[in-house]
Amino acid sequence: MDGIPVMTEVIAAGDDVYLYLDRKRTYLVKVEPEKSFHTHKGYIQLGDLIGKEYGTRIASSMDIEFVALKPTLRDHIFKTSRRTQISYPKDISLIILYSGIGPGSRVVEAGTGTAALTSAIAHYIQPTGRVYTYEIRQEFQKNAKKNLERAGLLDFVELKEGDVTQRIEEKDVDAVILDMATPWLVIPHAYTALKGSGVLVSFSPTIDQVVKVVEALDEHGFVCVETVETFIRFMQVERGKTRPQTVMTGHTGYLTFARKAIMVQHES
Amino acid sequence: MDGIPVMTEVIAAGDDVYLYLDRKRTYLVKVEPEKSFHTHKGYIQLGDLIGKEYGTRIASSMDIEFVALKPTLRDHIFKTSRRTQISYPKDISLIILYSGIGPGSRVVEAGTGTAALTSAIAHYIQPTGRVYTYEIRQEFQKNAKKNLERAGLLDFVELKEGDVTQRIEEKDVDAVILDMATPWLVIPHAYTALKGSGVLVSFSPTIDQVVKVVEALDEHGFVCVETVETFIRFMQVERGKTRPQTVMTGHTGYLTFARKAIMVQHES
Amino acid sequence: MDGIPVMTEVIAAGDDVYLYLDRKRTYLVKVEPEKSFHTHKGYIQLGDLIGKEYGTRIASSMDIEFVALKPTLRDHIFKTSRRTQISYPKDISLIILYSGIGPGSRVVEAGTGTAALTSAIAHYIQPTGRVYTYEIRQEFQKNAKKNLERAGLLDFVELKEGDVTQRIEEKDVDAVILDMATPWLVIPHAYTALKGSGVLVSFSPTIDQVVKVVEALDEHGFVCVETVETFIRFMQVERGKTRPQTVMTGHTGYLTFARKAIMVQHES
Amino acid sequence: MDGIPVMTEVIAAGDDVYLYLDRKRTYLVKVEPEKSFHTHKGYIQLGDLIGKEYGTRIASSMDIEFVALKPTLRDHIFKTSRRTQISYPKDISLIILYSGIGPGSRVVEAGTGTAALTSAIAHYIQPTGRVYTYEIRQEFQKNAKKNLERAGLLDFVELKEGDVTQRIEEKDVDAVILDMATPWLVIPHAYTALKGSGVLVSFSPTIDQVVKVVEALDEHGFVCVETVETFIRFMQVERGKTRPQTVMTGHTGYLTFARKAIMVQHES
Repeated sequence: MDGIPVMTEVIAAGDDVYLYLDRKRTYLVKVEPEKSFHTHKGYIQLGDLIGKEYGTRIASSMDIEFVALKPTLRDHIFKTSRRTQISYPKDISLIILYSGIGPGSRVVEAGTGTAALTSAIAHYIQPTGRVYTYEIRQEFQKNAKKNLERAGLLDFVELKEGDVTQRIEEKDVDAVILDMATPWLVIPHAYTALKGSGVLVSFSPTIDQVVKVVEALDEHGFVCVETVETFIRFMQVERGKTRPQTVMTGHTGYLTFARKAIMVQHES
Repeated sequence: MDGIPVMTEVIAAGDDVYLYLDRKRTYLVKVEPEKSFHTHKGYIQLGDLIGKEYGTRIASSMDIEFVALKPTLRDHIFKTSRRTQISYPKDISLIILYSGIGPGSRVVEAGTGTAALTSAIAHYIQPTGRVYTYEIRQEFQKNAKKNLERAGLLDFVELKEGDVTQRIEEKDVDAVILDMATPWLVIPHAYTALKGSGVLVSFSPTIDQVVKVVEALDEHGFVCVETVETFIRFMQVERGKTRPQTVMTGHTGYLTFARKAIMVQHES
Repeated sequence: MDGIPVMTEVIAAGDDVYLYLDRKRTYLVKVEPEKSFHTHKGYIQLGDLIGKEYGTRIASSMDIEFVALKPTLRDHIFKTSRRTQISYPKDISLIILYSGIGPGSRVVEAGTGTAALTSAIAHYIQPTGRVYTYEIRQEFQKNAKKNLERAGLLDFVELKEGDVTQRIEEKDVDAVILDMATPWLVIPHAYTALKGSGVLVSFSPTIDQVVKVVEALDEHGFVCVETVETFIRFMQVERGKTRPQTVMTGHTGYLTFARKAIMVQHES
Repeated sequence: MDGIPVMTEVIAAGDDVYLYLDRKRTYLVKVEPEKSFHTHKGYIQLGDLIGKEYGTRIASSMDIEFVALKPTLRDHIFKTSRRTQISYPKDISLIILYSGIGPGSRVVEAGTGTAALTSAIAHYIQPTGRVYTYEIRQEFQKNAKKNLERAGLLDFVELKEGDVTQRIEEKDVDAVILDMATPWLVIPHAYTALKGSGVLVSFSPTIDQVVKVVEALDEHGFVCVETVETFIRFMQVERGKTRPQTVMTGHTGYLTFARKAIMVQHES
C-alpha cells in the first residue's frame, strides 16, 4: 500500500518479553533459551517463546495462561523506576508533549536518576536526536546505563557526570528538562544552552521550589511561563460494578514550562 | 561535540510564527513579507521578522513587546481545535505514551476530526512511520488536510474516507487509536489490524461507552485492559499569592488501553 | 410513636418559598398574597400558594410547572452569596463537621461578609448556642443582617463591628472560624478566646496564607494542626449518557484546622 | 454578656478523652481513676486527668507529652468506623449540609452499620429531633448502640431492625438518608415517608447504583435531583517543604440528592 515494510515480529533469543498474568502481575523477562521463569503460578520454559509472534499466549507448568507481550516504552520505564509505578507516567507524558520535542530534537536533562525520564525522551527523539543527561551522583550512572541499554535506547543518550547548577556544555538545544532539587540555580545556564524559542521544563514536588523557579524564569527573560499539576485516576470497569478505584496518588509534583525569548541587545 | 549539525534557526518568509503577547493572548501567524499583523496592541510588520532568530522580541507600532516563537506541536494542536484549548492535551499526551508508539510506528486512527490527535501521532512517528486516519464525515477532510499541512506533518499521514465500524484495511499496525462515538463496534476490526502485542486506545466521554468498549475488548481476547481519567490543574504562581486557578476542566473523557493477545488455534 | 409532634407544614403569607423550575433555574421568593412572580415561563399568583403544603407543584400562567419548595439552609446560603453558588458549600460543610460544633455551641467568626458561613454556623448551634461574628467593614453589616433575618437565624447571632486582629472579646468559646485576609494575626487572640480543646478553623485561598497560619498555630501551642483542600464534581446521570460534568471549580481555598492545648504553667 | 452560661469544662471520671500524641497517633480513652493507659511512649495515669481542663498537656511515664482533648463528633466517628478514617467525613459533611437538617429534624436513615453516619445526624438534630435508623442485619445493632452511647447520642436515636426496601414506618420526616446496596428499591417508601419538600440522600460506590437511583427518583416525582462526587486532599505545610500529600483516597462513593414534590391529584 505505501511501501513501508511490514513484518510480523517474532520473539528471538536475548529479547525482553513483558509477561502478563493479570493487571497486577507483569514481569519483564529476558528470553534465555535454556532458562525457565518461575512464578507462584508455575514456570515457563523461555525457549518455547522463541520464534513465536509477540502477543502469544503461553501456558505455565501449572497450566495458567500468560501472554508474552513486546515491552513498550511505558513497560520499560515502569519496571526500571519504583517511582514511576503508578503515577509518574502522567507527568512524563505531559513533559514530552509540552516540551515540543520529537524525532531529531537535542535535549539536555538533569538529573539522570534511574533514567526513566531519559528513556522516554530518548524514545521520542531517536534516531537522529540526542539526549545529554547530567547526573552529579556518580553511583547512579551504572544503573542508568543498564536501564537505557535494556530499553534499546543507549545509542541516543550521552550520560554525563556533571553539575548543571555550575554549567551546561551544550548550545542551541531544543529543550532543557529538569527533575532535581534546586532547578532555579540552573535557569541562567539553561538560558544559554537553549536555542531561541526553546522550551524549559522543571518538575518539583514542593510549591516552594516552584515559586523559586518561576521567579528565576521571569528574571532571565523566559516567556509562556506556566505551572500545572496533573492527576490520574484508575477506573474499575465492569457492568453493574463500575466505579473509580479507591487508591489514587494525590501528588507527585508540579510541572513548570517556559520558553526562551531572545534578550534585545541595546546598542549605544 | 557529537557530530549532530546544530544551527540557529531563523525565521523565513512563509514560516508560521507563534506570536506571544501574554499567557492569554497568542497568535499563530504566517510570515508574509508585505503584510502586517494587527492587534489591539498595535501592528507588527511581519517582514521585519525575516532573518531573525526564533524567540526574538519585537515591538508593535504601539511599542508593545511581542515574542516571535517557533510553533511547537502543542501550539499547532491548540490553535487548530477549539476542543483542545484547555484540557485535551492531557489526554493526547497520555495516549502517545501509553500507545507505545514512536519514530517508525504505523498507526490507525479514527475519526480524523480536525486532525489535532492525528497531528500529535504524526509528529512522533515521523519520518519513517505512518498514520492511517479514517473519517466517515467527508466534510472534515479538507480542514484536516489544511491543519496537517500547516503543521508540516501531511507527508506522514494517509487521510482516508471510510467507516472503521465496517472495516480497517491495514494489517500488522502498532496501534489503533479511537476517538469516536461507537468504539466497541470497531474492536473486532482493530484486533485484525493490530500486530500481536499491539496497543488499542479508546477515548470516550461517557461511562456507558467505556463499559461497552471494555466488554468488547474482553470478548475479543485483548489483555492489559485498563481505563483511566486524567485531570490537569493550572497554578497561579507568584510569591505571596500562589494558589491553584479557580477555573478547571472537570471532565473531557475516559481513556481505555488494551493489548492484543494472540488467540490460540487449537488443532484437531 | 415517639411523642415528637409531627405536622404537615403549609405555606403562609410572608414565608419564603424556593421556586424550582429546573436544575439551573430556582428562585427564592417571599409569598406576598397580592403579588405575582414573573418569569420568562409565565407568572405565578403567589397568593395561590398560601395554605398549600410545601413541595406543591404549581402551574404558571403559561402552564409551566414549578415546585414550591421550603428553602433549606443551603438554598439560603446559595442565594445570598454569589461566591457560594457552586463550590463554597463543600468548604462550609467540612468547616461545620470538623469544627465540632452543634446545638448549644458558642462560636466566634470573622469576617461576616454576606453572612453565608454565619448562617450555616447559626443553623447548627441554634437555639441555645450563639455566633459572635466580627466584621471590620461597616458597609457589610446591613446586608448580613438582612440575610440572617431572611434565613430566620438572626436571633442566634451577635453582629459585631470590630477587628479580630486586635482583640476578641469572648472567652471560653467552642470554636473560632476565620475567613479573612490575615488570619495569622488572629491566632493569639483566638487562643485566648477558645476554651481548652476548642477548635480553630481558617479558610484561605493562597498557600502563602496557609503557611503563615500554620506557623502561628505551632508557635502558640495549638495541636492537631492539619490543612486540607476539597473538591466537588457534579455528575450528569442519564442511562447511556452518564459522565462527569465538564465544568468544575478547581480551587476555592485551603482549610486549616487546629485545637487548643493548654500551656503548662511551670511553677518555681 | 448574653446570658448564656459559660463554664470551663473539666475532665471527670468516666469521661472519654481523646489523647493526642501527634497527627498520626491519637487514642479515644475512658478516664477510669484507678487505671493507666499504656503506649509505646510510656503510660499515663488516667486519674491524674480528673479535674483538669480539657486540652491539658500531660506527660507520660517516659516524659513524652500528650494532650487530653475533648472528643468531638468527628473524633467519635473516626474512631468507631474504619471506613471513616480518611475520606468518608467529606461525604458525611456534605450529607449534613445538603440534607437541610438541623436541630429538631426528624430523619430516617438506612442502613445503620457502625452508626458513624447515624452519630453525625443525631449530633445535629439534638436535642429535639430524632433519627430512625434501620438495619436489616441484626448483628450490627449491638455495636451501633455501643458507639452511639459512647458518643452521648443514643437518646436521640431509635435503632430499628427492619428492611426499608419493604417499608418505612415513619411519616412526614424531613429527610431520608440511604447508605445501602439497593437504594432504588427504597424510593417509593421514601416518597411516602417524606414531608413535601423533604430531602432524599443516597450514597453509592458504583455508577450503576447511581443510575438506578436517579431513574427511580425521576419516576416517583422527585425534583432537584443531582449527583456529586467529593474529594479531599491533605497538605503537608512547612515553610520550604509545602506540598500536597502523596496519599489520597480516589473514591468513596457518589452522593445523590433530591427533593419531594407533591404529586398533583387531578379531579374528575
